[in-house]
Formats: sequence, structure tokens, C-alpha cells
Amino acid sequence: MAAKVYRASTTAPVNIAVVKYWGKRDPKLNLPTNSSLSVTLSQSDLRTLTTASCSESFDRDSLILNGEEADVSGARTQACFRELRARRVALEAKDASLPKLSAMHLRIVSENNFPTAAGLASSAAGFAALVRAIADLYELPDSPTELSLIARQGSGSACRSLLGGYVAWRAGEKEDGTDSLAEQVADASHWPGMKALILVVSAGKKLVPSTSGMQQTVATSSLFKQRVDAVVPVHMKAMEEAIRDRDFAKFAEVTMKDSNSFHATCLDTYPPIIYMNEYSKAAIRAVQLINEAAGKTVAAYTFDAGANPVIYYPEEESEAVVGTLFSVLSERPGWKEPEAYKGLKAAVALDDIGSFLAEGVNRVIMTGVGDGPVKSDQFLIAEDGSPVKTN
Amino acid sequence: MAAKVYRASTTAPVNIAVVKYWGKRDPKLNLPTNSSLSVTLSQSDLRTLTTASCSESFDRDSLILNGEEADVSGARTQACFRELRARRVALEAKDASLPKLSAMHLRIVSENNFPTAAGLASSAAGFAALVRAIADLYELPDSPTELSLIARQGSGSACRSLLGGYVAWRAGEKEDGTDSLAEQVADASHWPGMKALILVVSAGKKLVPSTSGMQQTVATSSLFKQRVDAVVPVHMKAMEEAIRDRDFAKFAEVTMKDSNSFHATCLDTYPPIIYMNEYSKAAIRAVQLINEAAGKTVAAYTFDAGANPVIYYPEEESEAVVGTLFSVLSERPGWKEPEAYKGLKAAVALDDIGSFLAEGVNRVIMTGVGDGPVKSDQFLIAEDGSPVKTN
Repeated sequence: MAAKVYRASTTAPVNIAVVKYWGKRDPKLNLPTNSSLSVTLSQSDLRTLTTASCSESFDRDSLILNGEEADVSGARTQACFRELRARRVALEAKDASLPKLSAMHLRIVSENNFPTAAGLASSAAGFAALVRAIADLYELPDSPTELSLIARQGSGSACRSLLGGYVAWRAGEKEDGTDSLAEQVADASHWPGMKALILVVSAGKKLVPSTSGMQQTVATSSLFKQRVDAVVPVHMKAMEEAIRDRDFAKFAEVTMKDSNSFHATCLDTYPPIIYMNEYSKAAIRAVQLINEAAGKTVAAYTFDAGANPVIYYPEEESEAVVGTLFSVLSERPGWKEPEAYKGLKAAVALDDIGSFLAEGVNRVIMTGVGDGPVKSDQFLIAEDGSPVKTN
Repeated sequence: MAAKVYRASTTAPVNIAVVKYWGKRDPKLNLPTNSSLSVTLSQSDLRTLTTASCSESFDRDSLILNGEEADVSGARTQACFRELRARRVALEAKDASLPKLSAMHLRIVSENNFPTAAGLASSAAGFAALVRAIADLYELPDSPTELSLIARQGSGSACRSLLGGYVAWRAGEKEDGTDSLAEQVADASHWPGMKALILVVSAGKKLVPSTSGMQQTVATSSLFKQRVDAVVPVHMKAMEEAIRDRDFAKFAEVTMKDSNSFHATCLDTYPPIIYMNEYSKAAIRAVQLINEAAGKTVAAYTFDAGANPVIYYPEEESEAVVGTLFSVLSERPGWKEPEAYKGLKAAVALDDIGSFLAEGVNRVIMTGVGDGPVKSDQFLIAEDGSPVKTN
């Protein structure tokens, strides 16, 4: 008789920070230099689906990511496995009737529903799904916030993808990192009208390599400490107030200022790190023109460690924001209801900016605030333990 | 008999800061938030020629800039006229035999030998030449540093163009600005091998307007105070040491870091100010590749409030720096001795970066450190007071 295969499947969301994480005070534990805050995006649009399984018949830990065998020997993945197994060991020790899953090898299969080429950092959703799926497999009683301590060790921003809505990652102060965790500031239903339009732009020429990353900023930027000590605390407080009050103008101002501040410290790195390109700048200008035409703030840009603009807007301002961008990008794939948008009136003619954006934007992704990880009845590993081919 | 026309003519240089001026603590007096330091560039290559004249026959103050009548009623020009006239009044009061030039109207004609399209800020050389020419006309005994107090009120960075070589503009502390002046750190002959290669790049699309300028940074950047309080003082000290010791590696590091820091505070402005474009980024990368190939620092980039890279290099490293850039930009105008450079070996193949730069660079300007304003026997105003046509 074949050994039993235990399975659990979950989806996990992408999150896009509005107060950015950049810089570790402890690279091993992924302890950040500053708190951050993100909007969890809807899994109807962007999600990682992960099935975790274990069985006495498995002879090693393994992970298949988007159809490709991935390395599990890295310190980050190992840290997640170790922490989750330790918690399972504790459960098994208390209840001898439980199967000894902690002693079995893990087999994990994970798939994103968005192409890598979309330029979205998939590690956050990926590690959140991995941790959530194994926690479900092990039937751990830990809360999402408790699990965020584990996901953080896989990929810093993954801790925020364990919760839905508006999520703060508290930097914490302890050396062991036990207070560096994700907390929900508000759930998606508190402010459900928050929408996001992601413009996936051409990479262009990678003229300045951006591989050196955040620790280079920590080590060399003379402005970085000011961001950590003085700028981010102000942004965190204002952002939590903006979310509490559903104050989009305030949300937008902090979002744009924090993105600018983060990219400023990248530019102040030695050698400099420059993520934004001319298309990013065109999107900044488009947002400015849309807001000017509206006579109030109806859109906010933010950029992660890349050139793709993410534009937040309130659903009630779809006409001004989506209507205007659709007027110049209607030929690009990704619009959800292009027929509906054809009726929307552009708030402002984007002219040169519009034609330049049309040249550089490859696709759009329309989404909005959403919930945290959800158990799935779709399994990427069959009952006999074999990976399921989905493509 | 026609009234006598008194004349004086001078040339004045362009300067390019290696520790940047950005931000005024007093906009009226042009008092800066921080000290700055620049290299005065050779007037063999870039200069403003200005003739100042006065006569009882002139019926108003007037200024002709590059063949066009310019407005003299602005507060900045008026401040310069007023201060210079006051000093002449004092001389005339002490010596009754002096002609009463202070009571006459001024006629000034000024010409740059570089096209406005070169994208070089001409106001520094322009106001330095204007002040120096009028001071000569009035036979003022004031030193260049004393005159720098006047030129500063015309255009902040003009104060640095009154001196040659390596020039510091001390921010000063007094409310009346009497200690905010330019001082020579070292003359050109102290470190004569300092060369500068300016790449004049296509403006590209002006996607984010940069008109708002420095006071917007002072008002909105949360990182700016850190630059003023902590970064610039360190850069000033290190730069003065580097110049004293003719230490190019140190000079280069501070130059690049200060340029990055300045542009970081621009990006941190709300709304953001972004001067650099993709060609600027390509030049940064080219400098990095040249330095990597040399195994030491042989080139340093800096950017003023624009996209044009200014690349400083020591003359003895011309082969590595000029040879490499000439290998990809040989078709562009501005090379001084193209036949000679054909023999220079590129230190590194710039590949994609090189062809991208070739696309965006319109011309090059080759120059180096030079002296301060020089009296000229070329007059742009004839003995009868009429402007001389030079084109």
C-alpha cells in the first residue's frame, strides 16, 4: 500500500506598499530598518496558488515553482521549513494521536496566475502562500500575524501578504525579531473602493544595474537614516489616519511622497540605484495632469523596486482615472471591461505624455484591495503525491 | 561735442559645482542653505564677454544679451547696479576729481561664446561678467571675494565665477549676507590637470516640469535638511582636502556622491523634480565601466539642474576617459583634436551603453580648470557708445 499523502492548498495575494520597506537592520532574520504599510491586492486578479504536501514516501524536500524545480536549500526557505516544522513538532508532542508530519519530507507546488514578465515581485505572495499552505497542512493554530513572523524570514514583504486589506509591518525593536510582524490596520471591507491600476512598462535598457539592492543603501546613503528616523514614522502615522478616515487625498499624498522618498534614497546610494525610467516619469506626469484636471486628488502613483507605475484611485473616480488612461492605452491588453471604458470620458488630453506612455506600456492590470490567503480546493499535487500539470 | 563714453570689458568663466548649491535661506539676498564648491572652467572654451559702459548721453540703463535687448528692471539686476553704483559713489565722494560715473546710465553688452542650446547655465558667467565689468568701469578697488557679495545677489552661483581654480561659496550665517561669499580654495595652477568633458544630451521629452525649482525642495523635501545639516558639511571638508592633496579618487567620490545627493533631494521634492534622463543614466554607467576597467577612479560624473553629464577626469587619464568616450561619440562635434583621439585606445567596450549614448549626445565640450575673469581689449560697445555687431 502506498504511503498516505497529506495535502493543503491555499492562495495568497500580492501586496503593494504605500509606505515602503527598504533596508534591513538584520539581514539574516529579515528585520527591517523601518515599518511599512501595504494594500493587499485582490486574488481575483493576482494570486499565487500553492499546494503543500508531505508523505513518508517522499525522499527529500522539494518545491516546484511555475513548473520548474526550485532550490529549497537556501537559508530563507530553510528558515520557513524549520520554523513551521518546529511548531508541528510541538503539536505532535502534545497529542500523540497526530500523524508525525514533522518527520516527513515536504513537496510543494506553486503557481502564479500572472506572468513573471509582469514585473511584479512574486516573492511576497510566494512565501506567504508557502507558509500558509504548510501551516494548513500541519493544522497549526497560529494566527496570520503569528505566521507573519515566519513568512518574514522567507521574504520581508511576504509577511504583509498573510493578511488582507490594509496591512502594517511593524519593524519591531527586539534582536530576535519576535516583534517584527504584520498587523491588519483595516480589512478590505473597511475601505473596499480602493482600486489599483498597474501599468506594466517596457524595461528599456537596464542602464544602471539595480542588483546591489537595499543593503547598499543602508551602507552608503547619507540620507537614508533621516528617512528611517524621521520620514517613515510620520508617513506611517499619517497613512494609518488616512485609512481610518478613508481620506483618499491624504492616502495619495503620503503614498506619492513615500515613493519619492524611497527612490530618493536609492538614488543617494553609492553607486546610485535608479529604478524609474522615462515611462515611469510619464506616468507621474499623467497622474499629476489627471489630478489637476479633477481639481482634487483622485489618483496616486507608487513605484516598487522597478519601473512599473502602480496607480491607486478610489472606485468613484474611475471615470477620471481609468477613462483618461484608457483613452491613450486602449490597445494594450489587460482592461477588464474595455467596452465599458469606451464610454468613459478622459478627464484631460494627455497628448505627448499619452502617446509616449502608449509606446512604453505593454499591458495593464486592473485590480483593487482584497483579502488575505484563502484555502483552496484546487490542488497542484494529486492524491498520489504527483504534481498536477496545469499548463 | 558728443559726451564721453567710459568703457570696460571683461570675460568671465562658467563654473560647475562639485558640491552643489540648492536651496536659499533668503531668496531676496540669494543666501544659500548650504555652502558649495565648484571648479572654474577655462575661458578658452567657455566664456561670457561683457562690455560695460556709461555716458551722460545714455538716457536709460540697458543690457543687450547675445544680441537681444534684455530687461534690466528685475530685482536681481537692479541689486547689482545699486550695489556697484553705491561703491562708485563712495569713491567719488572721497575724490572730487573723479568723473561722476555713478550718475550716468549704464549700457552693457554681453555675449556667450557657447550656444544657449548647450544647456549650460549661463547666468553664473553672465552675472560674474556684468559685475566684474562694471567694477572695472568704476575702477573699484574691491577684491573678487568682495565683488562676489554683489554677484551673488544677481545669481547665486555667479559669485563663484569671480574666481579661478577651485572656489568655495561659504554659506555664511549673517542675516544681511555679508559673510556669504566666494573664496578661492586653490588656484588653477595648484591642480592644473583637472579636465572636464561635457556631454550635451538631447532633452528628450520634458515629462516632469522642472520649473518649480529649489525653493520647492526647501519647502517640501523631508530629506533636504539632512543634506544641508549633515551631508554637505562632510562633502565640503572632504572636497577641500581632496583638492589640497590633489587626490582625484577622493575628489571623484565626493563629486559623484554630492550629485546623487542633490538629485535625490530633487526627487524627494513634492511634486518631484527629476532632471536626469536615460542618457544621463547611460553616462553614469559609462563612467562606472571606465573606472572598473581602469581598476581605479579616473572619471567622475556630476549633473547640475539638467540632464547633461559633466565628466571630470585628470589629464593623465585622458586615454582611458576620452579614448573610451571618443570611441562611441566620434561623430559628434566638439572634440578638440579628433585626429589625436583616433589613436587613443578605448579602456572598455561600451557596447549597448555606447550606442545608446551616441543616439542621445548632440555634442561634446572639452575643457578644464581655468582662471577667473580677465580684462579684455575686445569691446562690444564702440567708442561712440553704439553696440558692436559681432555676428
